[in-house]
Amino acid sequence: MTIAIYPGTFDPFTNGHLDIVQRALRLFDKVIVTVARNSSKNPMFSEKERLKLIQESVKGMKNVDVELFDGLLVDYAREKKATAIVRGLRAISDFEYELQMALMNRKLNNAFETVFLMPNEKYTYLNSNIVREIARLGGNVSEFVPSVVNNALRQKLKK
Amino acid sequence: MTIAIYPGTFDPFTNGHLDIVQRALRLFDKVIVTVARNSSKNPMFSEKERLKLIQESVKGMKNVDVELFDGLLVDYAREKKATAIVRGLRAISDFEYELQMALMNRKLNNAFETVFLMPNEKYTYLNSNIVREIARLGGNVSEFVPSVVNNALRQKLKK
Amino acid sequence: MTIAIYPGTFDPFTNGHLDIVQRALRLFDKVIVTVARNSSKNPMFSEKERLKLIQESVKGMKNVDVELFDGLLVDYAREKKATAIVRGLRAISDFEYELQMALMNRKLNNAFETVFLMPNEKYTYLNSNIVREIARLGGNVSEFVPSVVNNALRQKLKK
Amino acid sequence: MTIAIYPGTFDPFTNGHLDIVQRALRLFDKVIVTVARNSSKNPMFSEKERLKLIQESVKGMKNVDVELFDGLLVDYAREKKATAIVRGLRAISDFEYELQMALMNRKLNNAFETVFLMPNEKYTYLNSNIVREIARLGGNVSEFVPSVVNNALRQKLKK
Amino acid sequence: MTIAIYPGTFDPFTNGHLDIVQRALRLFDKVIVTVARNSSKNPMFSEKERLKLIQESVKGMKNVDVELFDGLLVDYAREKKATAIVRGLRAISDFEYELQMALMNRKLNNAFETVFLMPNEKYTYLNSNIVREIARLGGNVSEFVPSVVNNALRQKLKK
Amino acid sequence: MTIAIYPGTFDPFTNGHLDIVQRALRLFDKVIVTVARNSSKNPMFSEKERLKLIQESVKGMKNVDVELFDGLLVDYAREKKATAIVRGLRAISDFEYELQMALMNRKLNNAFETVFLMPNEKYTYLNSNIVREIARLGGNVSEFVPSVVNNALRQKLKK
Repeated sequence: MTIAIYPGTFDPFTNGHLDIVQRALRLFDKVIVTVARNSSKNPMFSEKERLKLIQESVKGMKNVDVELFDGLLVDYAREKKATAIVRGLRAISDFEYELQMALMNRKLNNAFETVFLMPNEKYTYLNSNIVREIARLGGNVSEFVPSVVNNALRQKLKK
Repeated sequence: MTIAIYPGTFDPFTNGHLDIVQRALRLFDKVIVTVARNSSKNPMFSEKERLKLIQESVKGMKNVDVELFDGLLVDYAREKKATAIVRGLRAISDFEYELQMALMNRKLNNAFETVFLMPNEKYTYLNSNIVREIARLGGNVSEFVPSVVNNALRQKLKK
Repeated sequence: MTIAIYPGTFDPFTNGHLDIVQRALRLFDKVIVTVARNSSKNPMFSEKERLKLIQESVKGMKNVDVELFDGLLVDYAREKKATAIVRGLRAISDFEYELQMALMNRKLNNAFETVFLMPNEKYTYLNSNIVREIARLGGNVSEFVPSVVNNALRQKLKK
Repeated sequence: MTIAIYPGTFDPFTNGHLDIVQRALRLFDKVIVTVARNSSKNPMFSEKERLKLIQESVKGMKNVDVELFDGLLVDYAREKKATAIVRGLRAISDFEYELQMALMNRKLNNAFETVFLMPNEKYTYLNSNIVREIARLGGNVSEFVPSVVNNALRQKLKK
Repeated sequence: MTIAIYPGTFDPFTNGHLDIVQRALRLFDKVIVTVARNSSKNPMFSEKERLKLIQESVKGMKNVDVELFDGLLVDYAREKKATAIVRGLRAISDFEYELQMALMNRKLNNAFETVFLMPNEKYTYLNSNIVREIARLGGNVSEFVPSVVNNALRQKLKK
Repeated sequence: MTIAIYPGTFDPFTNGHLDIVQRALRLFDKVIVTVARNSSKNPMFSEKERLKLIQESVKGMKNVDVELFDGLLVDYAREKKATAIVRGLRAISDFEYELQMALMNRKLNNAFETVFLMPNEKYTYLNSNIVREIARLGGNVSEFVPSVVNNALRQKLKK
């Protein structure tokens, strides 16, 4: 069985992320979406909230797990017997950071490949920062995120 | 009448920004320089200070307004009946972020175009961060900013 | 009256080019699509064929002219009393070449601005080379080019 | 069974290409190296020579096929019941072209994913053009290509 | 005597930095590694710690000085009678920032050149941020930093 | 004595090239401008013409040699006892190609460094292709090339 890990902070999970999960499922028997600690001090959603929002976003999809993750990605991947780490590639800025991380991970553990997938081109402009920014300014982001995430954003920003 | 909005944080306004305003005036009947809240926690100049410094920098130029702005740029542009949003393009890093913002803005409101202009190549190296950094270290930035901004920087850093 | 020139080789004219023409029309009173000599030795369509295909592609659109052009772009622009040169920006590779050309044109004649517009993100992947390549290999390009161009491609490749 | 296609001109096949084949074999049950017509007029090696050199280079590796290919990649991939198209990513210039091709292929046939893999960083500098150039100038390329390719280059250049 | 300054925050000094020092020594009679204040609020190592770690890392190498530095780089370079400022170039993101700084420094003082050197390609993926991140997560970084730095990281993270 | 080689096709030599020669002279005791065979089939100027034009362009400058060069750059550099290969860096597209060549050269001979210098920002837009193109179309390039080159271009294009 081939297992892929799709790591990220997902603060919040967007339709672009969902698109990558669906593409990865065409290539691997199982995809584990792994929620990393947000290195920024003030994430919009806590890790547990993010975990739950992704679980609801992928509800009904087979062969997808969602897990919290702490520590070195390569250790986690080994423990999960992963074949590959999956990452979405949209832009040049992504590209350089992603290559750097992938090379470093390979250096730390050569047992799995980092595999880059392209989201649908309509998600080129989409990332979690922009979604948070627009939502904070009162914009409508229902087109960019799963409906559970949209509701959670509204709840969060009402407070 | 064609109206263009030139949004930015302008902390502080530089000769590169002024160059873009002048180019935009060749294309549009009116240019509104719109000062956005600085998302960083500690701007060097407050919004009102930045507004005032830009007003003095463009004094004598016709068809230029300077305004504070809060909320979604696309809402503001609609309210102002803007034809276009103007942005300066200097470097690749600009380019990707700018394209992402422009695509997102188009998604939120398809009624106006984002128009990219190139500053004079002598401003390629110039941005507000570098100006603040050099001024803080005691360097002379009189060549890079309007004289009112230069004076304000000296005042600010004396304190 | 503001006049913009949209220069290119257009071998062939694609839906991405058409998208830029429509965006330019929102900003300028008149847009002149100018067909340049194809510097490659073997263009698929002759200059006159390209001129005619564009004319048919923009039929019914107001304020659009299509012309052949030879010589220095800046001389042509001056003669046409153009306010701006319009260029589409899709990718980084575009970006560098375009900036270089724009700076050079500014050096040769400082009387007009180069204005960069973004096509719809669904045309990110689209350029004339790829269209020609796919058509040559027997692929269906009807989604990527105006129908007159599609027909012309089929005719051309039957021979 | 998961099948990946690794298309290229491979003029000639390098150790960087071999590295990608080996990585792809960790992810897919079978990898088909597909030799495309070289669009340049004067390839160094004919299609049949390239086919044979790759076959000898992967001799002894299981689950690798080498084939000639003509026409649209997406048609070929469908016929082969491929799950994925594999491409190596080394540099930004690769990246843009590759994304463009991958998006176009997806447009033409949405049935398989393009998967990007990273070669070992020691192959960052390596491509077929540079190998040909150095060999032509009399340099030693034995470190950069399989030994059968090295021998073939020497033979070819002796003539 | 030709003198080169190699400025950086070096938080911490890596094998990639050491590689650049060694390359600079082939070009200049003397290399001064200059430790800049870390603009981030919470450096992992204090300036004095960083100074000491670099001094121990280059122990035994001739013609290398290590110094703390405060203020404008160009003033420091003049005072030291430097011929050149040395910087390592690994990636595009480096490239743009580095060019911007180099142009600005040239503007402030035209008396010396910024010289860009390439580290060994095996250090492409390496930077201080990634080293700190991996060390914090318990990963083994002994391959990426001089042994004195490795020991210091362990000490620091034990606390 | 430190010797730097500045290789290129120089078809033709521009003010941007001259700027790099002058910067290299601040760092090295001697600079050898080496004219490489133009790999394109139809250079505008023959190798001997290019050699002569550069010699006249640097007339009066001390410590500059101009030579023709054939074969592998690294062999030539060793023969000349060069310390460094000098290259100008203007744009991202330069950057990737240059890094690739520099890494390859290092692989072939580790005895000298490739050193990247930045031309004056006013030469950012300038390269030999654009100069040839403008001259062919009848534009005035006297601002972009040494006067001997300007005269030679006029002569060449009159024929």
